[in-house]
Amino acid sequence: MTDSNPIEAYRAKFISHLEQKIKIKEPQNLYEPINYILNLGGKRLRPVLTLMTTDLFGGNVEEALDAAMAIEVFHNFSLVHDDIMDDAPLRRGKATVHEKWDINTGILSGDAMLINAYQFFEGYPSDLFKRLITLFSKTAIEVCEGQQYDVDFETRDDVTIPEYLKMIEYKTAVLVAAAMQMGAMIAHAPENDTELIYEFGRNLGIAFQLQDDYLDAFGDPKTFGKQVGGDIMENKKTFLYLKSLEYADEEQRKSLLHLYSIKPKDASTKVSTIKTIFEESGAVADTKSAIDDYTQSAFKALSQLAIPEEKKQILMAFGKQLMERTV
Amino acid sequence: MTDSNPIEAYRAKFISHLEQKIKIKEPQNLYEPINYILNLGGKRLRPVLTLMTTDLFGGNVEEALDAAMAIEVFHNFSLVHDDIMDDAPLRRGKATVHEKWDINTGILSGDAMLINAYQFFEGYPSDLFKRLITLFSKTAIEVCEGQQYDVDFETRDDVTIPEYLKMIEYKTAVLVAAAMQMGAMIAHAPENDTELIYEFGRNLGIAFQLQDDYLDAFGDPKTFGKQVGGDIMENKKTFLYLKSLEYADEEQRKSLLHLYSIKPKDASTKVSTIKTIFEESGAVADTKSAIDDYTQSAFKALSQLAIPEEKKQILMAFGKQLMERTV
Repeated sequence: MTDSNPIEAYRAKFISHLEQKIKIKEPQNLYEPINYILNLGGKRLRPVLTLMTTDLFGGNVEEALDAAMAIEVFHNFSLVHDDIMDDAPLRRGKATVHEKWDINTGILSGDAMLINAYQFFEGYPSDLFKRLITLFSKTAIEVCEGQQYDVDFETRDDVTIPEYLKMIEYKTAVLVAAAMQMGAMIAHAPENDTELIYEFGRNLGIAFQLQDDYLDAFGDPKTFGKQVGGDIMENKKTFLYLKSLEYADEEQRKSLLHLYSIKPKDASTKVSTIKTIFEESGAVADTKSAIDDYTQSAFKALSQLAIPEEKKQILMAFGKQLMERTV
Repeated sequence: MTDSNPIEAYRAKFISHLEQKIKIKEPQNLYEPINYILNLGGKRLRPVLTLMTTDLFGGNVEEALDAAMAIEVFHNFSLVHDDIMDDAPLRRGKATVHEKWDINTGILSGDAMLINAYQFFEGYPSDLFKRLITLFSKTAIEVCEGQQYDVDFETRDDVTIPEYLKMIEYKTAVLVAAAMQMGAMIAHAPENDTELIYEFGRNLGIAFQLQDDYLDAFGDPKTFGKQVGGDIMENKKTFLYLKSLEYADEEQRKSLLHLYSIKPKDASTKVSTIKTIFEESGAVADTKSAIDDYTQSAFKALSQLAIPEEKKQILMAFGKQLMERTV
């Protein structure tokens, strides 16, 4: 990508704003970890979507910067607390906050980030402020609920497909959707359009997460960022696994349940056996078809927007680019 | 106290509202701990102050109930996360959330409570909503900073009196102050009065916390709720300790530093030696005088309020009652 790419331009604008906004204050032990996690990088996908959406609806991108900050700070708050809960040592190739400092620092700095996220809305006029905060709180509580479902599913053996879809919707998709709806609100888009753009983001977010499940098992090891087969090694109950269980014959079912109860040191046979079951049970075909359905639902919401066709094309191109990734 | 006591009437009104508002929702593992901690009881001091202040400024107490809920839910959020950080097994005589469930549940349920607290303001009209939320966020971030200072002080040996006062102000007093200011805002009190009532609450909150330090060492074992001498046994750097260090001669200083580096099984000699140093160094007299100064500052703010004298008397009586406690 070059700087002439609009996505890169939004990202550069956002990062410049972020760098101005994060300052080390007293007490340093509270604010240094916040500075650290916000500077670890990442794609800045959610704040970019806020800026892009404000722009598409003819709003002033400058006015969207604070909402974009709120979204990014909230996202990083959730990473800090989730990493404690998952006992994760690394985030973006660097030590997680609770590893670099300690668990208490991770808890308290995370709390401060959640409050800071709310504070970034304070520059908006009262009516818009209230609409943004109400959407933000609703989204934030859903992200917590999604995380709780994810934790619960680890020890449950009766998770249904609708439950799994609700979990990924809450844990991942609603924040993407809210990031875009806020962008539309800031541009004073008609309420119906702000709801349609939320639906676009929500459906694309679910499609993206299902694709992540698929690539984790079937991605190209040369280009996929994480270890291919990681979810299988961790016995993670993904869409592929749940669909396989649904379709499996007796022999496949026994094999699946057994392999998802062990963690062999050399996981290569386990991973290849599971992948064969995923394919042969029809779960792979179903996952691909679900990804396609959610992507189409996203584009359908897009088509109903009251904005010029060429602006819809920008969002459509963005969506296609996101869904055609192999990494 | 009887039901004819106005404090009791506010408390009963608040508890009835709280019982209506807290419902067990899905996912239960997220919401059950919230329900548990909110039902553990406690004095409900902060929400009572919100209701009382709305009433004193001639507002509608019903309208203050949601802000009072936000304050109480936030206070309980901070208890849940602080109890994890302090590794505390008990809260109000019952198991803490992270003891009854686990640390991850404590973190995530706490996060949800912080977000829920913000949601309780959503019934207020936009302008008031923005004023309340802005005060709430400022207060919440100060509470986090206060907790961080408290953690930092444990491993520092150069804590100054102004630093200590800032810590107790942030950790305790600002939430009491904000609870009252919100009550005044909801009653549409003039801005100057909302600031004066904040100053009343802030100064009274600091006086209350200093008195807590004093009673922890010199309270009557028969009536003081906690173990008398608990702070000394835990080597907690309270106002009494810091003032003693400031005034101590060389011998007292050596003795203080030594005794605050050990935790003997039988602490009775340590506690009595330290209490003698607290007295002889002049720290006790200084603490009493500081409590008196902050109480007087609270009453001075009160005297400047533009409300009828008999209403001021209610707040004054409340303040005196709070400061004359021996438990």
